[in-house]
Amino acid sequence: MSQGNLLYAQSGGVTAVINATACAVIEACRKHRLRAYAARNGIIGALREELFDLAREDRAAIAALRHTPGGAFGSCRFKLKSLEVDRARYERLIDVLRAHDIRYFLYNGGNDSADTSLKISAIGKELGYPLQVIGVPKTVDNDLPVTDSCPGFGSVAKYTAVSILEASLDVASMSESSTKVFVMEVMGRHAGWIAASAGLAGKGADDPPHIILFPEIAFDEEAFLAKVKATVERVGYCSVVVSEGLKNRDGKFLAEAGTTDAFGHTQLGGVGPLIAQLVKSKLGYKYHWAVPDYLQRSARHLASKTDAEQAYAVGKAAVEYALAGKNAVMPVIKRVSNKPFKWKIVPAPITKIANIEKKLPPSYIRKDGFGITAGARTYFEPLIRGEDKPPYDAVTGLPKYAQLKRVLVKKKLPAYSISDK
Amino acid sequence: MSQGNLLYAQSGGVTAVINATACAVIEACRKHRLRAYAARNGIIGALREELFDLAREDRAAIAALRHTPGGAFGSCRFKLKSLEVDRARYERLIDVLRAHDIRYFLYNGGNDSADTSLKISAIGKELGYPLQVIGVPKTVDNDLPVTDSCPGFGSVAKYTAVSILEASLDVASMSESSTKVFVMEVMGRHAGWIAASAGLAGKGADDPPHIILFPEIAFDEEAFLAKVKATVERVGYCSVVVSEGLKNRDGKFLAEAGTTDAFGHTQLGGVGPLIAQLVKSKLGYKYHWAVPDYLQRSARHLASKTDAEQAYAVGKAAVEYALAGKNAVMPVIKRVSNKPFKWKIVPAPITKIANIEKKLPPSYIRKDGFGITAGARTYFEPLIRGEDKPPYDAVTGLPKYAQLKRVLVKKKLPAYSISDK
Repeated sequence: MSQGNLLYAQSGGVTAVINATACAVIEACRKHRLRAYAARNGIIGALREELFDLAREDRAAIAALRHTPGGAFGSCRFKLKSLEVDRARYERLIDVLRAHDIRYFLYNGGNDSADTSLKISAIGKELGYPLQVIGVPKTVDNDLPVTDSCPGFGSVAKYTAVSILEASLDVASMSESSTKVFVMEVMGRHAGWIAASAGLAGKGADDPPHIILFPEIAFDEEAFLAKVKATVERVGYCSVVVSEGLKNRDGKFLAEAGTTDAFGHTQLGGVGPLIAQLVKSKLGYKYHWAVPDYLQRSARHLASKTDAEQAYAVGKAAVEYALAGKNAVMPVIKRVSNKPFKWKIVPAPITKIANIEKKLPPSYIRKDGFGITAGARTYFEPLIRGEDKPPYDAVTGLPKYAQLKRVLVKKKLPAYSISDK
Repeated sequence: MSQGNLLYAQSGGVTAVINATACAVIEACRKHRLRAYAARNGIIGALREELFDLAREDRAAIAALRHTPGGAFGSCRFKLKSLEVDRARYERLIDVLRAHDIRYFLYNGGNDSADTSLKISAIGKELGYPLQVIGVPKTVDNDLPVTDSCPGFGSVAKYTAVSILEASLDVASMSESSTKVFVMEVMGRHAGWIAASAGLAGKGADDPPHIILFPEIAFDEEAFLAKVKATVERVGYCSVVVSEGLKNRDGKFLAEAGTTDAFGHTQLGGVGPLIAQLVKSKLGYKYHWAVPDYLQRSARHLASKTDAEQAYAVGKAAVEYALAGKNAVMPVIKRVSNKPFKWKIVPAPITKIANIEKKLPPSYIRKDGFGITAGARTYFEPLIRGEDKPPYDAVTGLPKYAQLKRVLVKKKLPAYSISDK
């Protein structure tokens, strides 16, 4: 009897190291002589029976995935609803898995994907199809419970801390006669994990960033402006990091407070330019602002070594768990010690992970609401430790990112549209 | 007789490698036993007699300048006017130089600084003060004539090409069900050098960036939207790089076309969000946009090795030229060959550099106006070649940037305000 095949799929917003997880999954499958496929664009490709044949990829290309950002097989924002509402889709999914003798489904994503994993596991059982579903953690938002951190987060955190450090050195040198306030907007719509990581850039009271605006703390314009003014007067300049999820006292996103552009449309700028403009209008300081957006989560050139290693480790463990007969579990990171920093991968039931958001602990935010505490530093610092530079091409000066063949397997089922119900 | 002392000053927008030039100047001075000072905040500090005593800095701190972004001694945006209008200021400057026996003035900047260098050289001669003025090139804008490139540019170019490559891998993986268009705004208000460098990210017709909007080409909304649509339909997504200096057919900056924010102020967003919003409203595609702003010119962590080496070389040559008796010259980069890439430093009279802007050659822009030519690639590629990674702290995970003591020398002259005339 065949042991069956494995399907790997990426889901949700991608990261600088999600492909390191993919690399680990594929390398582990090869080691264990397990035939592996990857779904094109996540669950959408699984439904459409668009499966990449990973046996067709060179070993070198797979190895290069370890240092390639983005989602090599395509990801998606497509959430399967409840088993009742979306039953036809779940059944189609099982049909596809059955057609290709897929007994292991590895779903690499965040909260929503963990929830979907559970449902797929349930429908498999219900339909009597032997299937093991393993969730694999990934999200720059760092909001999965149980796991110490989420693969993808450490690299965004490193990018954020290094970028605000570097830009602040620039602003400091311009501040006497030009830019006095610099505002950088970072991701994290619901929790301030990424914003908090910016605090790693400096330890001293006058080190940048001087102000962090967390989504957890309602924006207090008066206190903020007072702090900006005091900082500029004492330090010479002020470096501000603001989370895209910053809210006002009514709980509304500041960025959605209604901006209008030249074309008469709303939602032009983000909260970064908004805060910068506020400083200019109320305090008169020259400003600059930056919104790195996707740059922050795709910056593989500045990946954290810890993060890249953990991303690889969860992928490897996922295959091992599958082969060990586990189902509806997720390999998670358990911090063993801080000094020295040690961690290991352990299995956790997905039921403890799905649909639960891990918030930034209040103890990580300084009393004044504008910075991080020593406790936060103890947590964050190991996550951005170490570099894992990709190889560069000696002629073009660019990182050598993986080039895959992406060969789809022949379909065995009738065509299917994901808008079908 | 003493050979006199040397004053080094930084001017204008700083770069990821201007401190590599400072490092070279100081190391060369030490080698030649020349006493050296650095002006605090450029020419402003020279006028105020705020001079850092470089003898007080450790050798290791000076060496660390080579890999530290920003302007370590402070820069400024402060332009001295003509000798007639600003005569008192020029005379004050000579007073300061005389008080500290400074016979060599090294001014590290762009076009404006070159012009100021000439004037200072002229007033020295007129007042019978023996002074040699050496301009030292620096500008991310790459717009100085005579020199093959400007130190600072290669690193922004590398950052831009790598960033759009990485972000495009991200967008490609999200495009099936989410973001289809990504817009990155880059610096370069007057010339498209930085925008053009983004074109290095890909060679093939379907490689990102798919569209570059140059300040040299008036924005053609219809052609742009048609190209975005065709690219999304063929490739699945579209990656756009837009120069902050993009103009409409009337020669007006698009970014200044009149945006209004929640506070009722104009100039909130840049041209990046504007273009992204245009795509959304006319084509309906989901978009993301990024404005790296200062991040692009301070990203020492991703500096080009060529750039760092050239920045060091011009600083070293500047001191050598000073000691060789040269005046009103600038060490510039001369490209000797492309294959292999060879260059050398040669002196050029500042009269040939001051107030002349080097434009992006039309032959570097593709016929359709949306990309770069093979000729451009030949010019740009060697400038982003090689990496020059700064050392990182093993505990904090951050680059170890220079920490200087910045000790001011005792003033010998009466206090002076730069608003004095």
